[in-house]
Amino acid sequence: MKFCSQCASAVSIRIPQGDNRERHVCDACGEIHYQNPKIVTGCIPEWQGQILLCRRGIEPRHGLWTIPAGFMENGETIEQAAMRETLEEACARVEIHGLYAVFNIPHVNQVYMIFRAQLSDGEFAPGEESLETELFDEDQIPWSEMAFPVVIQSLRRYFSDRPNNHFPPFVDTVTPIRR
Amino acid sequence: MKFCSQCASAVSIRIPQGDNRERHVCDACGEIHYQNPKIVTGCIPEWQGQILLCRRGIEPRHGLWTIPAGFMENGETIEQAAMRETLEEACARVEIHGLYAVFNIPHVNQVYMIFRAQLSDGEFAPGEESLETELFDEDQIPWSEMAFPVVIQSLRRYFSDRPNNHFPPFVDTVTPIRR
Repeated sequence: MKFCSQCASAVSIRIPQGDNRERHVCDACGEIHYQNPKIVTGCIPEWQGQILLCRRGIEPRHGLWTIPAGFMENGETIEQAAMRETLEEACARVEIHGLYAVFNIPHVNQVYMIFRAQLSDGEFAPGEESLETELFDEDQIPWSEMAFPVVIQSLRRYFSDRPNNHFPPFVDTVTPIRR
Repeated sequence: MKFCSQCASAVSIRIPQGDNRERHVCDACGEIHYQNPKIVTGCIPEWQGQILLCRRGIEPRHGLWTIPAGFMENGETIEQAAMRETLEEACARVEIHGLYAVFNIPHVNQVYMIFRAQLSDGEFAPGEESLETELFDEDQIPWSEMAFPVVIQSLRRYFSDRPNNHFPPFVDTVTPIRR
């Protein structure tokens, strides 16, 4: 951020009065431009015991598999956002069940919120951002071709909880992978 | 938003190519300025069975009571944000226990995430944005002077769950109050 979105003057980074951390502040009109973490929400869509995954047609992780998920938009609930992402990426309608997984990813300023879900009618197809969509049994999940660690962790836990039909929500934090 | 924060040119509201909703887009450099919901996080701080509340010294709802909570910042986990808000508003250190309440407030583009917590040492005092801080027994909670409906709902449920020592997390949606 270089310029004020209210008056087009230059912004500088400084601590506003009464605050305790650096913000982008307009040198002319004084507007403070806050930046906050974004919510990524999605679901684990189940149909007759199988899980619906999407193979990503966009970067990052083009060609790898994931669950339907994406940025929550203004005016939505998290459940509505998870349903919308599933419709956009997998052309599938879902009923959202409980909140299941919450992941802090502080190094990219994101919070993931993943719900359990059931396909409404078993129909699905690749959306614009997906190369393929497919239902997988637990022992067919392409673990080595998954796009995101949070999805691997959520699915492993889901399969571990499923025999008991008890899915206690959990919160975890992702730290950067050192390569 | 009237001007591009990257190049200071005028922005217009239109649907970018490949998107399906209106965004602020720069007419000159093409930058898309997304706007997304913000996370408000806080906790229900308990000490020897009593709940620590803060009387608000700022607007909105100046003079009314609430739990410590505020906007999550970039670079934090939600737990860290809840601890920071408790330190700022009530000068109290807490140990964060489970995630308890999640509220969609889509008409103001917020998601509330409230944790259970225990005071670390029983110490507290009003922070800069609080007029008073006080520990309340369940039957002393000033229900008619509470600042926010989500706090009332969370506390009522908390007291309802507490006898069983079982606090299943829940997700709910707040709709605008019609006056």
